[in-house]
This record gives sequence, C-alpha cells and structure tokens, in this order.
Amino acid sequence: MISVTVIGYGKVAYHLINAFLKSDTVDLVEVYVRDLAKAKTLDGKVEVTHKIDQLKKAHVYIVAVSDNAITEVSSKLKVTSGLVVHTSGAASINTLQTKVHKGVFYPLQSFSKAKKIDFKKIPFCLEAERDTDFKTLEKLAQSIGQKTYSLNSQQRQYLHVAAVFVNNFTNHLFKVGNDICDAHDIPFEILFPLIRETALKVEKMHPKLAQTGPAIRKDSKTIEIHLERLNEKQQTIYKLLTKSIQNG
Amino acid sequence: MISVTVIGYGKVAYHLINAFLKSDTVDLVEVYVRDLAKAKTLDGKVEVTHKIDQLKKAHVYIVAVSDNAITEVSSKLKVTSGLVVHTSGAASINTLQTKVHKGVFYPLQSFSKAKKIDFKKIPFCLEAERDTDFKTLEKLAQSIGQKTYSLNSQQRQYLHVAAVFVNNFTNHLFKVGNDICDAHDIPFEILFPLIRETALKVEKMHPKLAQTGPAIRKDSKTIEIHLERLNEKQQTIYKLLTKSIQNG
Repeated sequence: MISVTVIGYGKVAYHLINAFLKSDTVDLVEVYVRDLAKAKTLDGKVEVTHKIDQLKKAHVYIVAVSDNAITEVSSKLKVTSGLVVHTSGAASINTLQTKVHKGVFYPLQSFSKAKKIDFKKIPFCLEAERDTDFKTLEKLAQSIGQKTYSLNSQQRQYLHVAAVFVNNFTNHLFKVGNDICDAHDIPFEILFPLIRETALKVEKMHPKLAQTGPAIRKDSKTIEIHLERLNEKQQTIYKLLTKSIQNG
Repeated sequence: MISVTVIGYGKVAYHLINAFLKSDTVDLVEVYVRDLAKAKTLDGKVEVTHKIDQLKKAHVYIVAVSDNAITEVSSKLKVTSGLVVHTSGAASINTLQTKVHKGVFYPLQSFSKAKKIDFKKIPFCLEAERDTDFKTLEKLAQSIGQKTYSLNSQQRQYLHVAAVFVNNFTNHLFKVGNDICDAHDIPFEILFPLIRETALKVEKMHPKLAQTGPAIRKDSKTIEIHLERLNEKQQTIYKLLTKSIQNG
C-alpha cells in the first residue's frame, strides 16, 4: 500500500484523486485545497485540508499545481520524510523546493475536468533522484495506469515541445481544414475518417515513410492550384509546410 | 444490379475491384489494364481486357487512373451509353472527355495496395450531371460503402486542399515530433495516445474550441523556452503556427 497526499485541485489533481480513490493499492491520505469551498465535490470521499504546513505523513506528496506555483507551494510543505513530486511536463525536477527527496510524476495527456480519463491509456513519465523512489513512483503509476517511462528533466522538456507539434499544432491544422470546408459548404465530417487514419498510421509506420501528398511528390501543378484556393494566411502555412516536407 | 467496368489497375482501382467482387449488387463486367502482365492477380476473378476501344456494355465506367491521364484515357473509350466517372478528388468533372454523361466517384482516403481498405469507413463524394446518374452512383457507393456526399467539382477541390492540411501536413508535424524525440532518446510511442486523442477529439468538439497549449494561452515564457530547444527549421514552423493560433 502506498500512501499518497495530493496537493492542489486543478485538472490533473482532480483526475488523479478519482483514480487513486478507485485503486486498491493506494491509500489517499488527504487532499490539500487552497480554497475549501472549491472542493465540495470531494466531501466525504477523502479528507480535505487547507493547512499546507500541517500535512499528515505519506509516502508520496504529489504537487499538482500550475508550473508557476510549483516552487512556492512545495516550499511551504513542512514534510520531513517521504517523496515530493510534481506532475508537470515542462518544469525541471529542481523546480521543487523541499528538504526531502524529489521526483516527477507526469501523465502525458491533455486533461479537461469534464472528460473522463482512462489512465490505462496514458503514459506516465517518471523521474526520481534515487532508485528506490523511482520504484515507488513506478508502483504508484501502475496502480492506476499501465505504461511508465523513465525520462530525465531535459528529456521530458523535449517531449513537451514534441507534444506541442503533434497535439496543439495538429489541432490547429484541423481548424484550418474546418475553415476551408465551412467557407464552401462542405461538411467537415467528411474528413473524420482521414484524420483518424492519419493518426493511427503513425503507430505502425514512421511518419517520414507515411508521408503522401503533392509536397512529397513534388507535384508543383497541384501545389499551384491549391495555393490559388487559399487565403493569404492559409497560403503562408501551406508554403512553409510544403517546403519543410520537401526538405525532408 | 449495377454493371460496372473499371478502367485502370492502380491503388484506387485495385481496392474498388476487390470490393465490387464481394458485393451482391454489383456486376463487375471487366477491368481494362494497359499492361496485361501487371494484372495477373486478377486471373480468373474477373475478365481483363487491354482493348480500351472495345469495352463491353456497362452502366458505369470507372476511370480510375492518375489525374494527368483522365482526359486521354476517357477520350479513348468508345462507349455510346452508360455513365463515365473518374475517382479523383482534384480533377473537375469536365476533365472527362466522353460523348456519354459524366460523373465523379471519389472515395476520400489515402490508399496503399498493401493495406486492406474498409469502404464502410470511407466517405464517397459523388457528382453527376443528371439526377438519375447521381442516384446510380449513390447506389453503387452504398453497395460497397456507407456514407455518401454530394459535392460539385469546386467543393471537391476545396475538400482536397483541406485534406492536405489535416492529413499530409499533420503527418509532417508527427515527423517533426518524431525527430525531436529521436534526437533526445525519447521513445516516440509515448506520444501515440496523445496523437490518437487529438484526432478523436475533433469528432466531438470544434477544433477552435479544442485548442490548448502555450500559443492559445499566450504563455510567452513557455514559448520562449520551447524555441530555445528547437533547430532553425523547427523554430520557423513553431513560430508561424503559434502566430496563426493566436490570430484565431
């Protein structure tokens, strides 16, 4: 049994708490919430505190707060044993200010409170200063999830940048595609199967080999026709990504 | 029963032939192949011809050849009745040269011969000069697939451009993400669940509302840190797409 305290009640904290409550191998000791009124949904399910300097003993203290608040919040914990971890993809392990050992417990996914999260499908990127702490985090991740990876702070930060490309930027391309469809009375849903296939293909084939379309074929006639159909903003993106594909 | 002749034996033709052969409501009359040696896999399954000017009677002649060849190939068909259609997303209906009525039978997906295709999951974009021909194409599409859409040539061409954004360009962003991971010994597979979620989310939420990340949050500190980690080429893409997200 691993005893855990969650500090914070944002999106990541919310989903972790719900997952821990369902797990047989995790003892959720308490949840620290700055504003007790905001944590009413937790009533009766778990102990809630707003006294950050008086937390009970736990094996792992999970600081699930925004990146900017990690240093400040962690420095207020007056814990003398156990492991303090944060849940951020972008922040270094050393962002944590604590006298005990540190670690990172980063579930890689975009969360929203409204949407149910299945941690079994979400990879956990773990980091710790000591082997024994790493093993604790691994157990903790496996108690609610499945896949774990060992990444140091630098790797995790590069992963975070890569995630911006495959998630944020990809979603923006969907938005451009949607705009084009809307402007010409084309149901955007026609593209759903293609979007789905593109995403699934990458699991089976290196994206460099999976590349299709006029750019990689150097089909300048089609590229020209396409450019004529786009507005200036869309053209800029089209030209840059076409060039980038052609340069490999 | 709709009688169909397929002209060509490229990727689209290959998958259509296999689907028609399995359908109870389609009579596949014959397949025209320029080079008989290349169509050995069809042996015994369907009649094969290389005499394009002596095709048998059919309701629909499907010219499934590359865009550049549509005009030339269709002009060689000496058919006097029925409907001649092409399967291209980019070519106008008028690319077809024929004395009979024309149409378009465009399954929107990226095909490869190696991969099995389930037409039930692929939308068919249809166009015809006459209502009665449109209904024939609709029946034909439904005999092997499910969803059909009526798009005119201009709409289909815009759809084709939108597909470049959501498929070709998206795949290139996956490649950039993969490059970043490779350069720092990060298993790219960590990102698969996120890629999958991003693609599925667009089916439930408008991509403008689904946008997350430092660009939409105008989190200039994170953007700066990300840029420091990228090479020049990656930076150019990062900057342009960040700006585009921020400009809505």
